[in-house]
Amino acid sequence: MHTILKSNTKQVTIGIDKPFVTIGEKLNPTGLKKLGKALEENNMDYVKQLAQRQVAWGADVLDVNVGHPGIDEIEMMAKVVEAVLSVTDVPLCIDSNEPKILEAGLKLAPGKPLVNSVNGEEKQLSTILPIVKDRGAAVIGLTIDDDGIPATAEKRLAAAGIVIERAAKIGIPIEDIIIDPLVMTVGADSKAATVTLETIRLVREKFGVNINLGASNVSFGLPDRPTVNSAFLSLAIQAGATCSITDPIKLGGTIRATDLLLGKDDYSMRFLKYFRATEKLKEQEAAAK
Amino acid sequence: MHTILKSNTKQVTIGIDKPFVTIGEKLNPTGLKKLGKALEENNMDYVKQLAQRQVAWGADVLDVNVGHPGIDEIEMMAKVVEAVLSVTDVPLCIDSNEPKILEAGLKLAPGKPLVNSVNGEEKQLSTILPIVKDRGAAVIGLTIDDDGIPATAEKRLAAAGIVIERAAKIGIPIEDIIIDPLVMTVGADSKAATVTLETIRLVREKFGVNINLGASNVSFGLPDRPTVNSAFLSLAIQAGATCSITDPIKLGGTIRATDLLLGKDDYSMRFLKYFRATEKLKEQEAAAK
Repeated sequence: MHTILKSNTKQVTIGIDKPFVTIGEKLNPTGLKKLGKALEENNMDYVKQLAQRQVAWGADVLDVNVGHPGIDEIEMMAKVVEAVLSVTDVPLCIDSNEPKILEAGLKLAPGKPLVNSVNGEEKQLSTILPIVKDRGAAVIGLTIDDDGIPATAEKRLAAAGIVIERAAKIGIPIEDIIIDPLVMTVGADSKAATVTLETIRLVREKFGVNINLGASNVSFGLPDRPTVNSAFLSLAIQAGATCSITDPIKLGGTIRATDLLLGKDDYSMRFLKYFRATEKLKEQEAAAK
Repeated sequence: MHTILKSNTKQVTIGIDKPFVTIGEKLNPTGLKKLGKALEENNMDYVKQLAQRQVAWGADVLDVNVGHPGIDEIEMMAKVVEAVLSVTDVPLCIDSNEPKILEAGLKLAPGKPLVNSVNGEEKQLSTILPIVKDRGAAVIGLTIDDDGIPATAEKRLAAAGIVIERAAKIGIPIEDIIIDPLVMTVGADSKAATVTLETIRLVREKFGVNINLGASNVSFGLPDRPTVNSAFLSLAIQAGATCSITDPIKLGGTIRATDLLLGKDDYSMRFLKYFRATEKLKEQEAAAK
């Protein structure tokens, strides 16, 4: 099953038989103080720089989130999308759970964007899915139900089923649903990652849909986070994940190495090309400093 | 199934329900020029230093290989084993395919050592297995048959079966056989790693034995080898590998992160302990320079 995202000039195909797709996570002020400050100051230069840098480091899609206190987020979403579009041409992932903010981003995003996200709570299903349908977008469905994040893989599978069923009812095709099985930190619960890996297997087996991961949560509160995140991404890709909202700069090498190891990169072409490009980027960035 | 290795004071248990076991690979002059030179010069200080450093960085077992042109390898094996035993107390893995060199190492190795390796070729089976049996050692069995390294996972499974069957015939218990499904470089063949991962699954399913990997071959000829090796180790551990002859300094973090993610490290205790210990080692090694 293929989920197709489009910008004006580019098409990204997400599928188990395709290279893993990286959705750049950095355009999100949560956890990136400097971006929050830039938004407060209407500093679109920093936004543009973050967009360009992620694409240079191999992001196939860019997530855009403007959730930040003290700013008009509807207006800001439009501004940030315009700024990003002025310097890059990858498909966008519009990230909010506020319908009006989503609409502001989706109106300006060209081609076929992705929506991040809907979940299995009744309120979200009834407000977000119609917006996705109207725009002809694809959407990430989180495995959350009205009782929160289920503790077991079976219940997360059921939550995924609710999203897929409700989307089908209003005419969103199943290939436009990407399920995100959620991952909590293994620092707090040593079974946190195995539940997610098992959910990936169950969702793929039952529905065959694409699977997204926000791969950085898994290491929250732990030291040496890139090592934990890298290992988790490799495990998740082997289990059946097909895209991730993550840091292309820290995890681009691991993603391409895993594709190579799983037989998805003939003659190591993508891996070698990425290595050469990022070696050059490292030099340029070091020189710029 | 548990494979138990012993030194005079320590016991290492290899098993799917146990933390992944690291067998330090560095006491091997192939690919480590400086060690070759040290052996030529009878410089046991360098040997001792390599042994201690690997154990400090988390090696559970040490591989000892003295294959080098221009030296008496039988004599050297005894010397190196004695040097290693004078500074560390982990179980040893005696590494040679020459019966007399193996015997020289096995005579001095205390407790219950590991032998690296035997394969499914008639000549090896008939010379190596009796030595393993006499010493009461465990042994790594490579999935090679009289025609070489099979191209398919099914044929590698058959080669593993030959080793296990022949070992059983002379009374070596199946838990003392660790199968190594071999991995070639993905730089030359994009299916090289998937064949190995599939062999791991088949061998575990059919025989339930422990699985070893020489995890560094996979990246031969490629740039950014630690990233490829790390990703491969994570994939292999998820597939069912239980130990690896590898570099504890470069891969210790990935191994502990993967155990943590696979639910084998309650409260992240091992991961955190390793992080703290290696941070201290990094400081000490930097200061020593």
